[in-house]
Amino acid sequence: MNSSHKTNLLKTNLLFSKLPDDAIAIFSNHAIDKSYQKGTSIYIEGDKAEFFYFIKSGWVKLYHQTMDGEEAVVDILTTGHIFGETAIFDNDIYKISADAVENAEIILIPSHILKEQLGNNPAAAFGMLSAMSAHRKTQEKEIEHLTIQSAPQRIGCFLLRLCPSNKQKNIIINLPYDKTLIASRLGMKPETFSRAINKLREVTKIRMNGARVEIDNIEQLSDFSCNACSSSYPCDDKTHI
Amino acid sequence: MNSSHKTNLLKTNLLFSKLPDDAIAIFSNHAIDKSYQKGTSIYIEGDKAEFFYFIKSGWVKLYHQTMDGEEAVVDILTTGHIFGETAIFDNDIYKISADAVENAEIILIPSHILKEQLGNNPAAAFGMLSAMSAHRKTQEKEIEHLTIQSAPQRIGCFLLRLCPSNKQKNIIINLPYDKTLIASRLGMKPETFSRAINKLREVTKIRMNGARVEIDNIEQLSDFSCNACSSSYPCDDKTHI
Repeated sequence: MNSSHKTNLLKTNLLFSKLPDDAIAIFSNHAIDKSYQKGTSIYIEGDKAEFFYFIKSGWVKLYHQTMDGEEAVVDILTTGHIFGETAIFDNDIYKISADAVENAEIILIPSHILKEQLGNNPAAAFGMLSAMSAHRKTQEKEIEHLTIQSAPQRIGCFLLRLCPSNKQKNIIINLPYDKTLIASRLGMKPETFSRAINKLREVTKIRMNGARVEIDNIEQLSDFSCNACSSSYPCDDKTHI
Repeated sequence: MNSSHKTNLLKTNLLFSKLPDDAIAIFSNHAIDKSYQKGTSIYIEGDKAEFFYFIKSGWVKLYHQTMDGEEAVVDILTTGHIFGETAIFDNDIYKISADAVENAEIILIPSHILKEQLGNNPAAAFGMLSAMSAHRKTQEKEIEHLTIQSAPQRIGCFLLRLCPSNKQKNIIINLPYDKTLIASRLGMKPETFSRAINKLREVTKIRMNGARVEIDNIEQLSDFSCNACSSSYPCDDKTHI
């Protein structure tokens, strides 16, 4: 991919969106394209952080390993998201692990460029602050959901984020990644997830067949899920799935 | 409180810790001391944000109201924490509500000073980025706990954070705020909280009497709680309770 195309791509992320093109070009001139196959590790907690990452396509999971070997999924990211950029505040060590959970095309950008830009360019620092502030609100919403919503409501909310916002009836969507991963993403054991799916089907009349989900009427689903949330449907934050 | 004392206090927060004294003085010269009684509102979601806040003492709850009137507690903060500072990235509107949940002494700092400093002083921008990055890790840990730990383990983890790190046996601690608030903080309905306390007592032999908790041996408690976490006891992040 040529550098000007990369510049345009990077601009879609808040970190870069307010920067002039020549400043973004400093990043894209040093960027490397890389493909990761589904299931590949991108980095492990404790690795030295030489790069941060911009997702062109695919899905990436950020996770911790608990003391008793379980995996805590902290975030799942897709097109337009960046990750690994905060390692510059942790002595250039990644504090979390990242895996590709579906085939992914990723742009790697050397972390030292980010550090230099933050030191020299107030617009870069402000861009990164805006991006982190937006991410913080997403995390707060995540904590709110985990705190307040029931398991079936959390699955309903997840499905609503996948729905096209301009359609109210006869919607067909495909789950973007494995059901077991959706379960851990939503903080549920597989058996809780199955029970919650059944309950959700019963209450909202949605149909699920493998990864395919059919929703006749979105209102039933949003009535059920969004009442236990401080946002109403359609949600202002649909970027995190 | 005089301005140089305020400067020293502010320095305890990452936002200010790397700034030279004369830059912190710009903040402290414009700061206002204010007392809030337990139960008072500090601001409501949607209010115009003229200040951000540094907690000298007491406890502050950040929360959203859900559509069906329930309260989602997103954070509870105490001495040395700041809040309301990210409103500058949201057109100077608070995106969350804040209440004092115990009597609190708070320093109010005009938001426009922060904006000016971020634009003019790269060290201020870097300080704010470090503070936000640290906060992000705390939120990730929070999501991890809500995702992986059982209800009794979450309460155990909460108690461990209150324990003095230099003592292993015969520890007596006092709960810092109401049990109903601890329950919402940990994402539990009151009845789940009661059941989880009973289970925790049974497994770890701790004793609870009102707000007083007696822990004979910390190992039993940490063995039980920290296995379902990616950090081991003593925890590197004890600031968030």
